[in-house]
Amino acid sequence: MAATRDRIVEASAELFRRQGYAGTGVKRIVSAASAPFGSLYHFFPGGKEQLGVEVIRWSGGIYEQLIDLFFEPEGDVAEAVESFFVAAGETLVETGYADACPIATVALEVASTNEPLREATADVFAGWIETTSDRFEQGGVPEAEARRLAVASLAALEGAFVLCRAQRTVEPLHIAGATMAAAVREAVPKARGRRSPRPRRSR
Amino acid sequence: MAATRDRIVEASAELFRRQGYAGTGVKRIVSAASAPFGSLYHFFPGGKEQLGVEVIRWSGGIYEQLIDLFFEPEGDVAEAVESFFVAAGETLVETGYADACPIATVALEVASTNEPLREATADVFAGWIETTSDRFEQGGVPEAEARRLAVASLAALEGAFVLCRAQRTVEPLHIAGATMAAAVREAVPKARGRRSPRPRRSR
Repeated sequence: MAATRDRIVEASAELFRRQGYAGTGVKRIVSAASAPFGSLYHFFPGGKEQLGVEVIRWSGGIYEQLIDLFFEPEGDVAEAVESFFVAAGETLVETGYADACPIATVALEVASTNEPLREATADVFAGWIETTSDRFEQGGVPEAEARRLAVASLAALEGAFVLCRAQRTVEPLHIAGATMAAAVREAVPKARGRRSPRPRRSR
Repeated sequence: MAATRDRIVEASAELFRRQGYAGTGVKRIVSAASAPFGSLYHFFPGGKEQLGVEVIRWSGGIYEQLIDLFFEPEGDVAEAVESFFVAAGETLVETGYADACPIATVALEVASTNEPLREATADVFAGWIETTSDRFEQGGVPEAEARRLAVASLAALEGAFVLCRAQRTVEPLHIAGATMAAAVREAVPKARGRRSPRPRRSR
């Protein structure tokens, strides 16, 4: 039965990302998950809200690993930023401009109306900012700048997703990525060689 | 009866911005607008979708005027960018983190599911980018950079709204605003005096 629970979470994650939380009914979720209707309430006694919180945290964890993948120990952090935005654009195109941020749609919808869901999105964003900030520091960005640039990069990414999905073009992602890469590059002290990052913290 | 129609559009704009399109029923709209139920279909025979398109275009026009207000003929464009982000943060705080972008929530919700609404959001974003780009050029940003910085600034703004609403803090707006102001400042040729902008195009 564990597989059914996983299928419900994964199907919900995709539906919420594409069409939001409010617009996704539980019938649609169990149908997409090929799960019996009652199984949703069996696994999530708190119903759609409990499922929503779990989906946000689960998606957040997967994307945090994805962020991490782009920052190679020997790599250039500015290039990593630009590559991440380009790769996000490729995923958008491949999915017909449907798959962007796994939690932004829900975050905007529920920010004013559902406190448990809002808190879950806030925690996920905080985790992404911390991971990015750590990687920036390890890539040579001074500590005082690392968090600021992590927040600005995530904002640029999320906003670019909004523009790209609305306008059906990856241009905003490419522009935002190049702009943030330039800001990150500028923050790395000139004396620092591109091939001498600090040792990456083991995880 | 014109007043009723206006009230329906204004009430819908606020509800869509705060809780999205899918989560806002027509009953809630007519109640918020103090309008009889039948009046919605009287004024908008196409129902909620027709209303949605009109609300997006109407909100887009108001915010385009707002963008324009921040770029004073004699002003510094980088300062205008930073002020706009700070002012957006003040509005967020005053409204309990509810009033951010009038169309982003709907844009994310409907990007994959409703083509007329998606097109309306795309047109509004394109208008905002054009207005900002024009103002950047008039403030001394080279033509080749103006559009790029306008897209990056709008992306940073939209993404900062997502983070601010989720995290209940205006810090992302302040960080994104300062980052984009620095990028705009850098694009203005050094020789250019701050008090000698090109004449503003009359409108």
